[in-house]
Amino acid sequence: MINCDISIARKFIQDDEYLKARKKADTALDHLKNKTGPGSEWLGWRDLLADPNDAELEKIGSLGEEIRAKADVFIVCGIGGSYLGAKAVIDALSPHFGSNGPEILYAGHHIGGKYLEQLLNYLKQPKENGEPKRIYVNVISKSGSTLETALAFRMLRELLEEMYGEGASEHIICTTSKEGGLLNKLIEQKGYRKFIIPDNVGGRYSVLTPVGLLPIAVAGIDIRTLFYGAVSAYNSYEENAEDLLEYAALRNAIHESGKTIDVFATFEPELTSLGGWIQQLLGESEGKEGKGIFPTVATFSTDLHSIGQFIQQGKRSLMETFIIVEKPFSKLQVNKLEGNDDELNYLAGKSFHEINTKAREGTTEAHSEGDVPIVRVSLPALNEENIGQLIYFFELLTGIFVYSLEVNPFNQPGVEDYKKAMYRLLGK
Amino acid sequence: MINCDISIARKFIQDDEYLKARKKADTALDHLKNKTGPGSEWLGWRDLLADPNDAELEKIGSLGEEIRAKADVFIVCGIGGSYLGAKAVIDALSPHFGSNGPEILYAGHHIGGKYLEQLLNYLKQPKENGEPKRIYVNVISKSGSTLETALAFRMLRELLEEMYGEGASEHIICTTSKEGGLLNKLIEQKGYRKFIIPDNVGGRYSVLTPVGLLPIAVAGIDIRTLFYGAVSAYNSYEENAEDLLEYAALRNAIHESGKTIDVFATFEPELTSLGGWIQQLLGESEGKEGKGIFPTVATFSTDLHSIGQFIQQGKRSLMETFIIVEKPFSKLQVNKLEGNDDELNYLAGKSFHEINTKAREGTTEAHSEGDVPIVRVSLPALNEENIGQLIYFFELLTGIFVYSLEVNPFNQPGVEDYKKAMYRLLGK
Repeated sequence: MINCDISIARKFIQDDEYLKARKKADTALDHLKNKTGPGSEWLGWRDLLADPNDAELEKIGSLGEEIRAKADVFIVCGIGGSYLGAKAVIDALSPHFGSNGPEILYAGHHIGGKYLEQLLNYLKQPKENGEPKRIYVNVISKSGSTLETALAFRMLRELLEEMYGEGASEHIICTTSKEGGLLNKLIEQKGYRKFIIPDNVGGRYSVLTPVGLLPIAVAGIDIRTLFYGAVSAYNSYEENAEDLLEYAALRNAIHESGKTIDVFATFEPELTSLGGWIQQLLGESEGKEGKGIFPTVATFSTDLHSIGQFIQQGKRSLMETFIIVEKPFSKLQVNKLEGNDDELNYLAGKSFHEINTKAREGTTEAHSEGDVPIVRVSLPALNEENIGQLIYFFELLTGIFVYSLEVNPFNQPGVEDYKKAMYRLLGK
Repeated sequence: MINCDISIARKFIQDDEYLKARKKADTALDHLKNKTGPGSEWLGWRDLLADPNDAELEKIGSLGEEIRAKADVFIVCGIGGSYLGAKAVIDALSPHFGSNGPEILYAGHHIGGKYLEQLLNYLKQPKENGEPKRIYVNVISKSGSTLETALAFRMLRELLEEMYGEGASEHIICTTSKEGGLLNKLIEQKGYRKFIIPDNVGGRYSVLTPVGLLPIAVAGIDIRTLFYGAVSAYNSYEENAEDLLEYAALRNAIHESGKTIDVFATFEPELTSLGGWIQQLLGESEGKEGKGIFPTVATFSTDLHSIGQFIQQGKRSLMETFIIVEKPFSKLQVNKLEGNDDELNYLAGKSFHEINTKAREGTTEAHSEGDVPIVRVSLPALNEENIGQLIYFFELLTGIFVYSLEVNPFNQPGVEDYKKAMYRLLGK
């Protein structure tokens, strides 16, 4: 299970401030449980863990297997919550180099012409053996009308129809709303395969629906263990959410103290994309009505050599949240070197994980002495079960924290503003 | 040449505040030109553009050519300023998919065991034709003792010696200080090829030295045009730095107004890594003595669907800097679709660049109406010359802005704090 340690950050907050925030967190959790807060029609991300749909998991898993067997390239076509969760889990649990399944690529997450043109050219290029690439596209959009995704999907669809003719329909899977929306019309017309995004789950809370689970399954990751990891976290926090109430209260008190930035930092490079998922989950939920602590992402020790200076000594408006993996994935260790010409033999016999742990402990010491409150969130190991638990941990934290700000955690009214202006400029 | 437009952000600042900041910027530029500010022994990044060393460019270019011809994989082994500049330029100017030269990989930029172990295994795997991979390593470190880089280099060196025996020396290029440091001892002993990092250029200002230029040359990018782009910017701003003085003054006034975050955002996904380089350049320079505006990086419209909500309506502590490319790299356009089942035909005949431009204009309108000051920095096109100009633009901006905060832009005393704690914990 996830361990959450707020002890370092707690020292930065007076008792009365903390207790005030703690009361708000308790109320917030009640709102979530009793569906009495604003936006409570969007609590499907809790319902789906309360009552797992094994048949759906089975169906997603078996399509994942089919695509793994048939595809050279699998394209996740979606933006925001339609791809960040899948990318977070895939990057966390896949090898850094090579893969034993299809290459997984992303599209529909921006309007960059260079990227899309080069992607299309790459897809058209035959494989080394001269055969055409076997390409599958999973388009993910509730409405089907999100501009970035719809544009890329139009181009990808044209390409697949060019390559496979009538057979193109076999290569396209739509993840969309149950009814309505543009994709449902296309599904009817073309016979694409379909998965449903539940009406009561918002984009940034949708990683454990087909939105995230199909791409994750295609990457060869065990979605049942992932999902049931989240279920175990759900059950555990229904019983006792003390850890999360403390964390939410602490973050609320830090918010009230005027800090404006929360650096989500991991020491495992494979967790960088998970930071991106947390950034949307929290940022899009809390950033309303002039409130919120801006979530930003760092990978240490890499970024200690870029923004480490600022965190240590720049304007004191920061807090940090460390995402920690306790058990090493790799046992790689430093060998003794004859001659010791690089003077590293004092580390011989130590694993990279041990050294990385000391880097983290040193950073914790230095930054907290530099007046940065630090929260530590640890997962026992880098595996499906623990990542599933971590997903629910941050979903629930977001719900509690944002309700305790007296903000609706489930809408995103501000995202419409740029779209409105853009559509006007495009003459729609 | 780079265009810098502060007009939107300027409206957020009172005239007297701006004029006060402008005076500081003028003084700061004098300090840079006359070498009278703190840390002025670190102004080599200006000297090298004042007096280009064509022989050095030639030498780097020709080794780049040699490696392009011989290598399957080229590894940049460095951290912070030793790789961020190269990665920024390579990602900006290389194709997104495939490459006509060696695969470029990074190492020595963290202590992640999973990554390094899987990298070593990948390097050991023979090519599809059964032959061993031809691997070149460029280790980049002034002292040779930076832990992350030295550890990875020890492992990579062992691997190359295993693979190529005595011939391994041919496969290793060191970029390091002229004298002293651990790499110089190794160079003497093993006969590695060497490039010198000038003593008067700090890591984050070193992209136009061999630190950045060799990897960039290996990627097939024309380093002479890149370098002379920067030279042209240098000459132009020596004559007239009005744009930069205005920008620095504006950013200073925004700093004084209490804003704490500067989102460096581009609408071109290939410029994301350039944001990472700017983040270090500015952040490590300004983040001292409790000062600075925390630089963070976004790629739009991608991240409008994650942190867009916060930028639009969250706590009003943000400014934004848009990095804009005027001339499209790709002419990809939207075709008319029979049936118009995705309802996008109103965009038929428009290029992705035009649509992306409207997204940017819509975002500019929406965010500035949401009380976010926006600075727009535009490069005419995505090419070597303009990227070179942009590099010097941000280097000079950093110098002027940070001097105007009355901070030394060229040291990084806070980075030592985590290292000291880490080395103590490692028993060094």
